[in-house]
Amino acid sequence: MTNITSSIHEKLWTNAKFLGFDASFDEASVVVFGVPFDGTTSNRPGTRFSTSAMRPESYGLETYSPLLDLDTGDVAIADMGEVSLNLGNTQLVLNQIQAVVADVLSANKKPLMIGGEHLVSLPALKAVYEKYPDVHIIHLDAHTDLADMLSGEKYSHGTFMRRAYEFLGEGRIYQFGLRSGCREEFNIPGVYQEKFDITTTGEIIKQLSGKNVYVTIDVDVLDPSIMPGTGTLEAGGITYRQLEKFFLELKNSDMNIVGADIVELSPPYDNSGSSTATACKILREISLILANK
Amino acid sequence: MTNITSSIHEKLWTNAKFLGFDASFDEASVVVFGVPFDGTTSNRPGTRFSTSAMRPESYGLETYSPLLDLDTGDVAIADMGEVSLNLGNTQLVLNQIQAVVADVLSANKKPLMIGGEHLVSLPALKAVYEKYPDVHIIHLDAHTDLADMLSGEKYSHGTFMRRAYEFLGEGRIYQFGLRSGCREEFNIPGVYQEKFDITTTGEIIKQLSGKNVYVTIDVDVLDPSIMPGTGTLEAGGITYRQLEKFFLELKNSDMNIVGADIVELSPPYDNSGSSTATACKILREISLILANK
Amino acid sequence: MTNITSSIHEKLWTNAKFLGFDASFDEASVVVFGVPFDGTTSNRPGTRFSTSAMRPESYGLETYSPLLDLDTGDVAIADMGEVSLNLGNTQLVLNQIQAVVADVLSANKKPLMIGGEHLVSLPALKAVYEKYPDVHIIHLDAHTDLADMLSGEKYSHGTFMRRAYEFLGEGRIYQFGLRSGCREEFNIPGVYQEKFDITTTGEIIKQLSGKNVYVTIDVDVLDPSIMPGTGTLEAGGITYRQLEKFFLELKNSDMNIVGADIVELSPPYDNSGSSTATACKILREISLILANK
Amino acid sequence: MTNITSSIHEKLWTNAKFLGFDASFDEASVVVFGVPFDGTTSNRPGTRFSTSAMRPESYGLETYSPLLDLDTGDVAIADMGEVSLNLGNTQLVLNQIQAVVADVLSANKKPLMIGGEHLVSLPALKAVYEKYPDVHIIHLDAHTDLADMLSGEKYSHGTFMRRAYEFLGEGRIYQFGLRSGCREEFNIPGVYQEKFDITTTGEIIKQLSGKNVYVTIDVDVLDPSIMPGTGTLEAGGITYRQLEKFFLELKNSDMNIVGADIVELSPPYDNSGSSTATACKILREISLILANK
Amino acid sequence: MTNITSSIHEKLWTNAKFLGFDASFDEASVVVFGVPFDGTTSNRPGTRFSTSAMRPESYGLETYSPLLDLDTGDVAIADMGEVSLNLGNTQLVLNQIQAVVADVLSANKKPLMIGGEHLVSLPALKAVYEKYPDVHIIHLDAHTDLADMLSGEKYSHGTFMRRAYEFLGEGRIYQFGLRSGCREEFNIPGVYQEKFDITTTGEIIKQLSGKNVYVTIDVDVLDPSIMPGTGTLEAGGITYRQLEKFFLELKNSDMNIVGADIVELSPPYDNSGSSTATACKILREISLILANK
Amino acid sequence: MTNITSSIHEKLWTNAKFLGFDASFDEASVVVFGVPFDGTTSNRPGTRFSTSAMRPESYGLETYSPLLDLDTGDVAIADMGEVSLNLGNTQLVLNQIQAVVADVLSANKKPLMIGGEHLVSLPALKAVYEKYPDVHIIHLDAHTDLADMLSGEKYSHGTFMRRAYEFLGEGRIYQFGLRSGCREEFNIPGVYQEKFDITTTGEIIKQLSGKNVYVTIDVDVLDPSIMPGTGTLEAGGITYRQLEKFFLELKNSDMNIVGADIVELSPPYDNSGSSTATACKILREISLILANK
Repeated sequence: MTNITSSIHEKLWTNAKFLGFDASFDEASVVVFGVPFDGTTSNRPGTRFSTSAMRPESYGLETYSPLLDLDTGDVAIADMGEVSLNLGNTQLVLNQIQAVVADVLSANKKPLMIGGEHLVSLPALKAVYEKYPDVHIIHLDAHTDLADMLSGEKYSHGTFMRRAYEFLGEGRIYQFGLRSGCREEFNIPGVYQEKFDITTTGEIIKQLSGKNVYVTIDVDVLDPSIMPGTGTLEAGGITYRQLEKFFLELKNSDMNIVGADIVELSPPYDNSGSSTATACKILREISLILANK
Repeated sequence: MTNITSSIHEKLWTNAKFLGFDASFDEASVVVFGVPFDGTTSNRPGTRFSTSAMRPESYGLETYSPLLDLDTGDVAIADMGEVSLNLGNTQLVLNQIQAVVADVLSANKKPLMIGGEHLVSLPALKAVYEKYPDVHIIHLDAHTDLADMLSGEKYSHGTFMRRAYEFLGEGRIYQFGLRSGCREEFNIPGVYQEKFDITTTGEIIKQLSGKNVYVTIDVDVLDPSIMPGTGTLEAGGITYRQLEKFFLELKNSDMNIVGADIVELSPPYDNSGSSTATACKILREISLILANK
Repeated sequence: MTNITSSIHEKLWTNAKFLGFDASFDEASVVVFGVPFDGTTSNRPGTRFSTSAMRPESYGLETYSPLLDLDTGDVAIADMGEVSLNLGNTQLVLNQIQAVVADVLSANKKPLMIGGEHLVSLPALKAVYEKYPDVHIIHLDAHTDLADMLSGEKYSHGTFMRRAYEFLGEGRIYQFGLRSGCREEFNIPGVYQEKFDITTTGEIIKQLSGKNVYVTIDVDVLDPSIMPGTGTLEAGGITYRQLEKFFLELKNSDMNIVGADIVELSPPYDNSGSSTATACKILREISLILANK
Repeated sequence: MTNITSSIHEKLWTNAKFLGFDASFDEASVVVFGVPFDGTTSNRPGTRFSTSAMRPESYGLETYSPLLDLDTGDVAIADMGEVSLNLGNTQLVLNQIQAVVADVLSANKKPLMIGGEHLVSLPALKAVYEKYPDVHIIHLDAHTDLADMLSGEKYSHGTFMRRAYEFLGEGRIYQFGLRSGCREEFNIPGVYQEKFDITTTGEIIKQLSGKNVYVTIDVDVLDPSIMPGTGTLEAGGITYRQLEKFFLELKNSDMNIVGADIVELSPPYDNSGSSTATACKILREISLILANK
Repeated sequence: MTNITSSIHEKLWTNAKFLGFDASFDEASVVVFGVPFDGTTSNRPGTRFSTSAMRPESYGLETYSPLLDLDTGDVAIADMGEVSLNLGNTQLVLNQIQAVVADVLSANKKPLMIGGEHLVSLPALKAVYEKYPDVHIIHLDAHTDLADMLSGEKYSHGTFMRRAYEFLGEGRIYQFGLRSGCREEFNIPGVYQEKFDITTTGEIIKQLSGKNVYVTIDVDVLDPSIMPGTGTLEAGGITYRQLEKFFLELKNSDMNIVGADIVELSPPYDNSGSSTATACKILREISLILANK
Repeated sequence: MTNITSSIHEKLWTNAKFLGFDASFDEASVVVFGVPFDGTTSNRPGTRFSTSAMRPESYGLETYSPLLDLDTGDVAIADMGEVSLNLGNTQLVLNQIQAVVADVLSANKKPLMIGGEHLVSLPALKAVYEKYPDVHIIHLDAHTDLADMLSGEKYSHGTFMRRAYEFLGEGRIYQFGLRSGCREEFNIPGVYQEKFDITTTGEIIKQLSGKNVYVTIDVDVLDPSIMPGTGTLEAGGITYRQLEKFFLELKNSDMNIVGADIVELSPPYDNSGSSTATACKILREISLILANK
């Protein structure tokens, strides 16, 4: 029987990698990593479990995307696992994430970060901004995340884009799918906001031709029917089909997409596993887009 | 440290109110209350738990509605809690609900009732009819609820509108989103019925300009994808986006909306909490519409 | 009190039949039966429980379909229960299913089979092909199921249509709603494939006028928002409304529909019961179409 | 292939019977039937679904009981399905149940009823009392069910034993495992009550040697750890091992057990299926005891 | 009908109070309040939802405790709702909790705090210590919570008792039910530790006769079979019956119990509701003990 | 900020290893691996997901066992991930598992296999038997697994021990905790069987002093209250405390434990995560025992 399996070293494997992303850091053009932080979540916590749920779930997905006509087997993507974070200290966590993103960028690779809550995008934006001071942000979300304070705190999943706005300035942030916020958040000068839908992404993406762009996707931009596993549910979201149109627009654009993140999946709130499977599919499509541009 | 919090009386609060509706009965123009009755539910019971699930869930919602551009902070709404009901006696329960609705109406306030099963709308309609004999009913539902008998009973969630029809008469009931019933229920003279969709609400609302109107929303008008937490599931329902169009039509109408109810949420059947969150959002929009008309 | 219920024989009943399908085999024009097999399921097993979950759930459905304006009370349908299968032996199971379908067809009745995983359709197609060598297949699915091998096996839920293609030949298979597969599966000669949607069913159904047609519906053609209870989740599916359009096309067609199946419902993955309820509704519509053509 | 399965009539079957109880009414010594009524449930409803969940679950059980060294294959038990009940009318339901139990008793068979809520035991006790005016009751329950009124009603799952006490009189009721009730319910003259445990069942069973005895088991006598799927949870219950000791005492007793019931399983509150599986095992043991005495 | 219900003011009520604890602050001898904080939870968060789940669940409980032969209707307990906390700032939250507990103590009432994670006990212990410098602590828990640091932080649910030890000193802390911790945590001088069980509570309670004692109960001291709804699961815990023995020891002791807390219930992880119901029962027993000593 | 985190290579990690078992194959004395096979499961499938659920869950556990006073940080254990299996072909899967176990044994290391269904133990026993022809088996299980055939198949989770008995012979198999099987399975000559409990493990372990022993633990030996997440539920099982006694007996024995396995965890059936957490704790204790003997 030894001719069936000659050695344990050859025949064991672990499903520790998203979608079989097994390129080394050096080989990869896109670097995927998880940041399991949900320390400022004001409603339902649990995004800390997103990556540990997504990795095994991702094995149900094909490597080929019929939508994009691209295959992850044709590109080099590294899954570097989770960033080691001092979870009890928000400021230190933000510094740790920023250092990792800066490290990926300095190696001339594209970061693809999996949250965690949306505050984790702030240090990513900071690192990207330091390398690309002219960066523009495409932001899909149910919430503006432009509050100045939340529960008395400046650094929160509900304020992160306000903090980013303070260093990015006007004319840099493009928000889509918004359907929640206080009145003030819908009146910030120099922020593009499409409420309720994402019908104008195509037009904006054309405007941003040739520019450096970072894409941040809060999965709650999707309707809760398809994405119940998230922290703050807002009915009236977009369908996955609408998101697919956006993916095609990204693929066909002339922007320089310098990085991206996918945040706010909270697996414990969807026992069916459907939210996690959908997040995995988004990850596949975004990683293919990043790797092929 | 005593300067941080000077007294327990100032620093404690309870989340006993929907959406922070803390006006007193006297101050309020809209009076919200729960009727946790599901005694005739023929399929999956549990609507008795709707309000106890909705109150804490409602704290995840903003007070501001981007759809309506209105804020619950600008209006006076009272959450009076649950009506005390003799749950084992259906006729007595109906009488108790009718008395409460009559009481709210006699104070020239608008009742906004949270079910419970749909039978609770019958006494509300009776009380409204007694004050406004010319009242018209806008009824969103997957089911016609026009059966004459259900399980051998005259008073049931599946017959309530037939009983109301008996005193309201023809030309008063407008039903939308219907997709279940026996053949006879789709052939009641003098009842307007839009099957499968709610595309004609705008037209009907225009026809009802200037009239007294009561609105009753069975959450199962929504597709089970967005509202699995209800008693009787019927695929093929409307999306939340379609409901939003209806809300705008209500807001912009010239009808005199004299009251409303939202019924048939059954939280135990949706562990994700999404159905409950969606019901809370419907409550916010309807309460804002009632308070601003 | 004996006048209330004269005898236990008259007053007891079991809910062992789908939707009250209580015709005998001889009386029936349509024969419904379950094949609780999920032995080759590569991702989330559980379709073996579909029929035991569907039967009690089906009692929440009306016998009347407003969509089709047909009532199961007007037709003769037999629910023959589950086929007795040697579950541990895939080849024997396939033989057993084929024999049952052949038996139904030889009695000049229409088989309506409830899976189980999609591999169960292969022996059904074989039996249908033996009686109707010119049969055409309408196949709704998220996946092409045209792989040559899966996990090293030739007979699998992901390869069943490839095996059928080997005896049916080109020009016989029409697939709709596809959104997953490897690149090769989207390039099989002589297989009609509509990706992502089912907008062309009407046109194809017209082309197939007068022909013998078998319809196989994998419930995962629906979006996971409405059908989370299935083995392999693929976001971007069709809505139930789109399926209703297809049902009307079937009802109004001139095809000779010789049989059908509904497969891949996995109840353990949807605790809300919504997936099961939706599968029951599909069963009602399909059984009405078969019985009325 | 036709030699594998010669005819559909021979090879199809339904899992409509508990544990394969397929004796006819006439053949059987024990008659099992379900009464899916939960109309007066004051806390969490859902016992109406007990039998439809138990039947398919029961197929995971062996027919042989190692505890009792008895096998259901050696005895004749009929599963007559569910009693047809007018669910909206409590008094009529009680009459219907009483008539069925009387019918079974008049055929000199032993009724084994599956609830439903505990109120269904009242008409069973009435029917048993009419045939055996000297009957004694062994009652396992977390609750005394001896309240005079509940929610203003005389007939309720919380008052049923008080109603039975009114016709049975003192010295007939033996309660075990009690751990909830108001103070008055623990001071009813002539009712034997063991609080918190069932250590005295053996002694009482000896006292009842030679007597006619009816056994009613509310599954909530078990600790919620093993039986979360019930309407009213009370920590501090007995273990299944303790229940097994009771089963052995029943098997070895000299009482004439004239009937029994098992009530208050509410499957929707235990998604693991464990509560339902445990109820099935209790059903197997009790049916074996009844059939072998 | 107006004689049925004369006024809405009389007939409406809310279930905002635990177990009907409706005494005012001034009337009460025991003051119950929630602290919905889980900011340092290292494993599964969600204790922030404990009180909003417990309040409605508590209505399934009787006011009478057969175990203690006491009734909450005979004592004056105030449920003051949740403490308003700045959730994003751990140090500020600790200060806010300490101020509230101090406020209750200064009014010569007994605080009964409902967590939240176990770190909330630290400020309670501080406030108690300031009033009663000789206070002793009875601590039931699966974990020692005596780590010096967790995830690099000094203030955490896993370190809170180490911080308390620093001001309480040796000979004051008595731990029971411990079954998790690193080796060092089991070797802290001057801390009494019973591993795996709570058999010595009776003896220790006798030793503490006449002393001021604070009781802190982490619900994870119970076995996960009865308490799956908690953050960090440790098999091998005590049964609820063992906890009942402890309650009787407390009731019959001569200690001066100056306050208590019940922490670490995380409702989202137990969809059956059983964990929440059990926590409510613990709350009833502890509040009765505090109010009757 | 670069001094915080100098390089992504140093700061990223994956939680791909059970309990941090990061020794290499060559360093390790114990080799852990998963065999995610559930192809013959007759009731509820899902054990294929055990290891992907256990790995992330295991991070909630301490490395130190207070029970055994041992720490995984002090020993060298390798987690080699999952064995790559041809899941559609049972015989090939069995060969693949046997080859892996033989490979581990030939390197003079101890295999610790995580199932998967119990059939996976058969090839492990075969490989162990080939190296140690005198091996004795300690088997904890609710079921005897001694049937000759199941669903017409010889190789099944319900027959595996019968197949092993055929080559091991009499006097080698010691079963504990049995409470399900057909009558014949309790009468196999030369198999030691303790029904219902595990009180005699200590005595048997003494008898086996000095002998080569393999330990196979089906988690369903535990009561469903603590282990609902398994395929076939049998009430009346042992408590975790009883299992702890067994662990101490193993630790203190003089047997040569040559390998072990832990099988039948089915995570999808316990949404609370408690079953998975308990399985992880069993894994920690067994791995510590193997590594320290």
